[in-house]
Amino acid sequence: MKSSAIRELLKIAEQPDIISFAGGLPAPDLFPVDEFKAACISVLENYGTQALQYGSTDGYLPLREMISRYTIRLGINLNPGNILITSGSQQALDLLGMVLINPGDHILVESPTYLGALQAWNTYGAEYIPVRCDEYGMCTDELEEALRKGPKFIYVLPNFQNPTGVTLSLERRKKLVELADRYGVPIIEDDAYGRLRYEGQDLPTVQVIDAKKQEQMSYYNGNVIYVSSFSKILAPGLRLAWIIAPPEVIAKLITAKQGVDLHTSTFNQIVAYEVSQQGFLTRHILKIQETYRVRRDAMLESLEEQMPESVSWTHPQGGLFLWMEVPSQIDTIDLLGKALDQKVAFVPGISFYAQGGITNTMRLNYSCCKPEVINEGICRIATLFKKELVNK
Amino acid sequence: MKSSAIRELLKIAEQPDIISFAGGLPAPDLFPVDEFKAACISVLENYGTQALQYGSTDGYLPLREMISRYTIRLGINLNPGNILITSGSQQALDLLGMVLINPGDHILVESPTYLGALQAWNTYGAEYIPVRCDEYGMCTDELEEALRKGPKFIYVLPNFQNPTGVTLSLERRKKLVELADRYGVPIIEDDAYGRLRYEGQDLPTVQVIDAKKQEQMSYYNGNVIYVSSFSKILAPGLRLAWIIAPPEVIAKLITAKQGVDLHTSTFNQIVAYEVSQQGFLTRHILKIQETYRVRRDAMLESLEEQMPESVSWTHPQGGLFLWMEVPSQIDTIDLLGKALDQKVAFVPGISFYAQGGITNTMRLNYSCCKPEVINEGICRIATLFKKELVNK
Repeated sequence: MKSSAIRELLKIAEQPDIISFAGGLPAPDLFPVDEFKAACISVLENYGTQALQYGSTDGYLPLREMISRYTIRLGINLNPGNILITSGSQQALDLLGMVLINPGDHILVESPTYLGALQAWNTYGAEYIPVRCDEYGMCTDELEEALRKGPKFIYVLPNFQNPTGVTLSLERRKKLVELADRYGVPIIEDDAYGRLRYEGQDLPTVQVIDAKKQEQMSYYNGNVIYVSSFSKILAPGLRLAWIIAPPEVIAKLITAKQGVDLHTSTFNQIVAYEVSQQGFLTRHILKIQETYRVRRDAMLESLEEQMPESVSWTHPQGGLFLWMEVPSQIDTIDLLGKALDQKVAFVPGISFYAQGGITNTMRLNYSCCKPEVINEGICRIATLFKKELVNK
Repeated sequence: MKSSAIRELLKIAEQPDIISFAGGLPAPDLFPVDEFKAACISVLENYGTQALQYGSTDGYLPLREMISRYTIRLGINLNPGNILITSGSQQALDLLGMVLINPGDHILVESPTYLGALQAWNTYGAEYIPVRCDEYGMCTDELEEALRKGPKFIYVLPNFQNPTGVTLSLERRKKLVELADRYGVPIIEDDAYGRLRYEGQDLPTVQVIDAKKQEQMSYYNGNVIYVSSFSKILAPGLRLAWIIAPPEVIAKLITAKQGVDLHTSTFNQIVAYEVSQQGFLTRHILKIQETYRVRRDAMLESLEEQMPESVSWTHPQGGLFLWMEVPSQIDTIDLLGKALDQKVAFVPGISFYAQGGITNTMRLNYSCCKPEVINEGICRIATLFKKELVNK
């Protein structure tokens, strides 16, 4: 009931006259349209028949090798048999659900967590064990108790989490790997935003920390299944993501993917490979970082200036989102209705809790609006808060 | 066990020195590479940011409208709410399985039937009620008995069926619609090959026959779910197909697709729309028909000339495949091993039977080889048969 109410409200948020902090869209003005044009021409001239033909389920080998080379530099031994290309990371989550979840299985998740994972896994009859998050990510001191409940796997978004924007600290990453190992519970690491850091040092991925245990191996055969995507660093319209996992997990996922969509678009895979060459992807990510950093700063400054004291928010070091907590007498679903009247939108936090119930949080996206628009939108939300707090 | 043996053998069939009748690939020499290049340039110049951004789950509206216009001309009232774009027709089959099948449900299928549907639906715990096929398709005089067993739905490939190449007669189409209606069992009509007819008159689709019952409605709300694809008429590397169904079925499929891959590549949808304009798709299909007709004729002639009398085969009026039945003492899995030694390949029939068991049939593809190569390949298979029949 509530979720369909939210869906209806968020449809209104798509109207062009609304300042929307609700979506999770990359900024379209940064899409490398000219580079894509050059890549499409080159692919069709040089590999036209291959690009338009059926391909293998595991994915275009040069693209898997490119991902492999990049990831090896992070400190993990891989071979292309560790990698599966998927049709966006939503498909990665779906395939993992199909292969790993039996009805009634419990999944250990951050609270709040990524809505799309809950949507994918509810289909397979998953139940959830939520673990609290604070400004350093999942509270690993509460993890052991949760692990004793026997989850099938742990799902974690360590970098600039969707929805909260927080980053799991290095210490907690190590603790997570150690406890998961001790309890024999695999980890799914969702790293859709990891390349979009605007301040501070990159932290090793959970999978890289796990791989240190078996450094002598020529491929990865550990306890972590890693998911990442081209959606936020290149273009979501391609629907391209990848999974890095032990070869026997990849083999099961390939069988599942065969029944689900045969393979991911050959054309898009070859174009994504082509457009990434000669350092373009690295340069392009720098450009995205610069733009989003300015937008994040604009939102943080506006919040600082305009929000009443009883409202608090996270300070993300990267990614697309920040998370607000408002006084408990304010229900952010009701507030969204009023915000839409003022032509501004956000996502009420309730949808991101596996077990619902919490009504005084909200997610704000800053990647898609220019700084002056962000300032105006935050101004409108702050005015609403002040009115609400006086009335209640 | 047998299916993994076949998989291993078919991997060998991909080696370039083998004449392969095993695949189901469109002829790559017919791919409209130049037209795709022009379409990519135009899409990126005119709709670049839209094409690279996230899109809606139901699909690119102009593409759905294009499909709708074409289908309306066949004699059925539709609106875009009747249509969902999927990532290839394999995804259409998967989504239908996800929405319609509960573990233990029985699906009424042709025997033999399309392997990919069995793969998609086995995941959801489907069981099967096979109905015999002859040269006019599913034997509808055996349908009523099968319907009494209470199938969840009927799955049928009326045009140039994969694997047999046979076409369901008009009379049987009408009988199928009538019986399905009487027993309240929906039909899934898989029409991947319908546009590839090389002789005779197009027959109305099962969905069009069903729609006649409610001609006065402005959209389709009947008993048939129709699936078709751009893979065989444009390019499989795009992974683009569509489902036409009552709006309430489409709504359920959209919810399922949201959890499965969010949406199908925006870029590919807009490119497919663009390349199809100004009558190109219609002209291109004529070219495919001309080429495949010659290849089909070459295979039929070679078979006629070279096969021993105890072997029989279908005479497809279109599509990509024909089906052979060989004397029962020959096991076509064994035969494939020997054929590979002679550098020729086909698919043993056993994989296409929902309940296995039949070992003396095989599928031959003729779309992917030039006539002289087809002749050479059939020659090698005929020689093998003659040897086998002398030995046994």
